[in-house]
Amino acid sequence: MENRTYTADAEPGDDVTVAGWAHELRDLGGIAFLILRDKTGKIQVKFAKDEMDDDLVETGTGVSRESVVKVVGHVEEEPRAPTGVEVVPESVEVVAPADPELPLDPSGKVGAELPTRLDNRTLDLRRDEPKAVFEIRAEILRAVREYFREVDATEINTPKIVATGTEGGTELFPITYFGEEAFMNQSPQLFKQLMVGSGLERVFEIGPIFRAEEHNTPRHLNEATSIDFESAFADHREAMDVCEGAVRAAYEAVAENCAAELEVLGLDDEFEVPEEAFPRLSYEEAIERINATGELDDQLVWGDDLPTEGEKALGRDVGGHYFITDWPSEIKPFYIKDHDDDSALSTGFDMMHPRMELVSGGQREHRHDQLVAGFEQQGLDPESFEYYTKMFRYGMPPHAGFGLGGERLVMTMLGLDNIREAVLFPRDRQRLSP
Amino acid sequence: MENRTYTADAEPGDDVTVAGWAHELRDLGGIAFLILRDKTGKIQVKFAKDEMDDDLVETGTGVSRESVVKVVGHVEEEPRAPTGVEVVPESVEVVAPADPELPLDPSGKVGAELPTRLDNRTLDLRRDEPKAVFEIRAEILRAVREYFREVDATEINTPKIVATGTEGGTELFPITYFGEEAFMNQSPQLFKQLMVGSGLERVFEIGPIFRAEEHNTPRHLNEATSIDFESAFADHREAMDVCEGAVRAAYEAVAENCAAELEVLGLDDEFEVPEEAFPRLSYEEAIERINATGELDDQLVWGDDLPTEGEKALGRDVGGHYFITDWPSEIKPFYIKDHDDDSALSTGFDMMHPRMELVSGGQREHRHDQLVAGFEQQGLDPESFEYYTKMFRYGMPPHAGFGLGGERLVMTMLGLDNIREAVLFPRDRQRLSP
Repeated sequence: MENRTYTADAEPGDDVTVAGWAHELRDLGGIAFLILRDKTGKIQVKFAKDEMDDDLVETGTGVSRESVVKVVGHVEEEPRAPTGVEVVPESVEVVAPADPELPLDPSGKVGAELPTRLDNRTLDLRRDEPKAVFEIRAEILRAVREYFREVDATEINTPKIVATGTEGGTELFPITYFGEEAFMNQSPQLFKQLMVGSGLERVFEIGPIFRAEEHNTPRHLNEATSIDFESAFADHREAMDVCEGAVRAAYEAVAENCAAELEVLGLDDEFEVPEEAFPRLSYEEAIERINATGELDDQLVWGDDLPTEGEKALGRDVGGHYFITDWPSEIKPFYIKDHDDDSALSTGFDMMHPRMELVSGGQREHRHDQLVAGFEQQGLDPESFEYYTKMFRYGMPPHAGFGLGGERLVMTMLGLDNIREAVLFPRDRQRLSP
Repeated sequence: MENRTYTADAEPGDDVTVAGWAHELRDLGGIAFLILRDKTGKIQVKFAKDEMDDDLVETGTGVSRESVVKVVGHVEEEPRAPTGVEVVPESVEVVAPADPELPLDPSGKVGAELPTRLDNRTLDLRRDEPKAVFEIRAEILRAVREYFREVDATEINTPKIVATGTEGGTELFPITYFGEEAFMNQSPQLFKQLMVGSGLERVFEIGPIFRAEEHNTPRHLNEATSIDFESAFADHREAMDVCEGAVRAAYEAVAENCAAELEVLGLDDEFEVPEEAFPRLSYEEAIERINATGELDDQLVWGDDLPTEGEKALGRDVGGHYFITDWPSEIKPFYIKDHDDDSALSTGFDMMHPRMELVSGGQREHRHDQLVAGFEQQGLDPESFEYYTKMFRYGMPPHAGFGLGGERLVMTMLGLDNIREAVLFPRDRQRLSP
């Protein structure tokens, strides 16, 4: 729209062409106010009924809420107006009328349940809070990419249609691909490993992953955004350094560039960039500390996976982000390398927010024969993965990396109750549309 | 790998720990050279057989090509070495041996056909040229995202699993989604439109799209990277401005930041950032100019779609990027708006590189009733798209946008013969792995 100006830029004396949504209409009799909202804010438009053209007043005061309106006018100082200025209109045009019956109230005065919000994301994101969440989400992705480039990683894009999944046939969505069976990829794991063996050495990818997991919880999605990093000539300790750096870079960028959004979300006072190094607890220390909290009915013993309740108890105990390292090898996937001096101990790590796991990573098994043996132990046919294992015969360097859940990062950073609040159009067991 | 140093940083007098691949071995009798290659370049390692420890010499000179090797040593000036320096080793370790039989020669001395390269991308990307292509690809995506942010667009991520495709059931890959029929999305079109009606107003997405098209050509992929932009309160002319700006930003960034990669590809002399505004030809002018070239057997008449041969003839005639505007409405999708003063003319546009189409865009139909009528004319059931059309009843602003083929941008910028050279792991009619 030519000559369009934003409401946030309106200064007394300006001639403006503002366009946006009819946020609210207040009719005081002789005078009426239309509050017009665009992406930058809101502005008051004044209709002095006796002083203005009848058609103009009728159009401006007759508009239904959430209609799209274009107003050409002059900006005047008005201390009683919400932003200290108001527009005296010369013309008003209803560009797109809205049905008076709205399925969701974008003014936020009438609350809405999450399913209603997700069914009507267009209206939902006219509200300041959800909009702030997604502006912050975009900033997080920008900052993480910038950080990865700073540590010399190259962005890659790997296929989402694959012949075999990373960890076999479970939890995969099947596709019909020109008559052949294929799957939607559950992780870029194998492909990013193939690339660290190439001349790129160090890579990252931010893209969708697909998991046909049945559970329907506030922290699982069937389609999610994975932030993946992988580096040749790195071990699990260096991967943890990069992981910590990426998460800190995201927090720093949001603190620096999203002050207005944090204020909208009521987080401006409490938002903290994690300054201290994330503690690195061994699995053994982790279960000891969980047991010491006394919050579990049964004491954990070596070899147990950590139950959600245990993670939460430990999270409260630690009070910030932390790593759990040196897991029992049998709990971690076969492509994670064991410690050279103790094959019962894995180099795998998790990075935890007090509320939940954010990251899974480790040094990878780069030795061909051990890798193939791992497939067999997992009950997978190494033949189906030959496109991958074959490359380990031609000089595959030691390497390490991690996958960070994009939505979980947003959710924990902003204290969202449900991971679906961090995705525009979530996919879960019940939800396939919009 | 702690203390690892890059070959490109090695200066005479340095103590280094270089790690990489055994690129070449030259044995001159009393002296032998191992050329070690890492992501930054290559360096010569000298083995003076009589002066050095036998085990060291044996390890260093016995290593098979493409094995991963770690060398600790001292850097000395050596004018006859390829980089003017060489490493005198103190220790050599074969970190990961390579089979002597390689399916592809990363030194590039023995050429390889594209299918062999795609089957062995790990080895293929140890060659300088393919590596340069993907370093440039990453820079293009970075630059385009930065440009979109400069024009106030917010990055979004929309679902790849959908209940209905953008343009109906053809050319979609079906998925089984918890027992329900679903599809892999062929375009973020409908979702980005839903977002311009939200408070975000202006959005972009770079992500995978999936098209079950049967054709197997050097310029089609079944999984591709789409660069999408959409803006509220914009018409097709403003969308063309942004489109042109994004493509120019990509060229500028590559010219500025990828000089070494362009040199590797032999493009350093001929690489040109498009400086002039892209000509905007109407469809009518386009067919006239194609007919005037005399290169087609049959003259085109109004209403014909442009055949590939015609596009190429016009591309040679124009000699640079250009737009084709004002298409007959019946050729363009129903969600593209017609001109207000002539419903036979569409606001849809294509942006062309002389070799092929890069972009398709236009102003969108934002009026609810006309949009629903468009679905019906297209033979689609508007009910299936109600999640989308419904939002057009609640104040959907006029809007416009485009989709730019990421791989086509890379391919045309770098003069690649086949679009598969611009994707790490292409998916086509025959290729599902790796």
